[in-house]
Amino acid sequence: MYLDGSIRSYLDDLAAKRPTPGGGSAAALVGATGAGLLSMVANFSKEEVIKKILQKTEDLRRELAELVDRDVAVYQKVSAAYKLPKEKPTQKRRRSKAIQDALKEASTVPLEVCKLCHEAIKLCGELVEKGNVSLISDVGVGACLLESAFQSALLNVEINLKGLKDEKLIVETRKILEPLIGEVHAYKETAWEKTKARMEGG
Amino acid sequence: MYLDGSIRSYLDDLAAKRPTPGGGSAAALVGATGAGLLSMVANFSKEEVIKKILQKTEDLRRELAELVDRDVAVYQKVSAAYKLPKEKPTQKRRRSKAIQDALKEASTVPLEVCKLCHEAIKLCGELVEKGNVSLISDVGVGACLLESAFQSALLNVEINLKGLKDEKLIVETRKILEPLIGEVHAYKETAWEKTKARMEGG
Repeated sequence: MYLDGSIRSYLDDLAAKRPTPGGGSAAALVGATGAGLLSMVANFSKEEVIKKILQKTEDLRRELAELVDRDVAVYQKVSAAYKLPKEKPTQKRRRSKAIQDALKEASTVPLEVCKLCHEAIKLCGELVEKGNVSLISDVGVGACLLESAFQSALLNVEINLKGLKDEKLIVETRKILEPLIGEVHAYKETAWEKTKARMEGG
Repeated sequence: MYLDGSIRSYLDDLAAKRPTPGGGSAAALVGATGAGLLSMVANFSKEEVIKKILQKTEDLRRELAELVDRDVAVYQKVSAAYKLPKEKPTQKRRRSKAIQDALKEASTVPLEVCKLCHEAIKLCGELVEKGNVSLISDVGVGACLLESAFQSALLNVEINLKGLKDEKLIVETRKILEPLIGEVHAYKETAWEKTKARMEGG
């Protein structure tokens, strides 16, 4: 879908008066961009430990990139469900069930973006210490983009949860996310400070 | 260049062992994505004041998108300058001048990204109050992405300034950026809190 289309047309559709692509897809794109920058730094670094990091950043980048389109696909189902007829009681029930099913599926995508960004930003600590100093600002930028992709996806999880009635799923989803929130912020802060220190020659 | 190529191949090149595209171009892409989300919200809102905002977000989005490629072009000149021969004194002088010229030009691009992101994030205040509530999370995401694009571009300005010898230009550039740093953060925080309040029905 969008992944193999041009950047220009993605941005045009994002800005247009159409429900997709929206913030969830954008979060995945920014996450993939952040992970891509970590890969670039790893690609220019020589230590053995960095090669293992590269495998991980590349896997994460590809998974995040796939979610750019996946979010559009699941969100289209949500939009379609809301457009179902709701005049008769049977129609109402059917529509309500379709909405709940679509929202459940839709909430899994930004949740996945959150998890993948958390995995990726974890890798910044080692990269910022051992990565090639000529590209060190790219670790800082990568961490910055991954944190904002995480926060953006989190907001999208929240908005999906608001429409959901399955209390158990809501509690479970929040339980997964809660510990990640502080960790992602801490990883970003550490990577950012160390990036600046290495830029200063520290 | 990249703007009319696929998202997939942009991400592949970003991650690859090649100097471009790098963090400056990525910052422009994330800025354009953030501005695009603001446009989407504006497109779904009806008030007259929002139409004026839409014109601005669309202009900013297009300018930021162009800088995705522009950053690659100017950074390629920096890379080329560093590769010039430096054996003889005349070569050394020529190389040094070419590096300074290329760095000067290169530093204008992330500086422009900073200015445009600052312009765009300013618009979040009105959008988050008057924008269509169904899309309100997209204002929050837009603000979040614009702040991280600003910070990312700022880091790229800093790294370019480190290589520059023109003290006057360094001082002037920092003078432009300094007031923007706090403002961008404040705009983001306000937009983020108000987004959450409107998501809660406030």
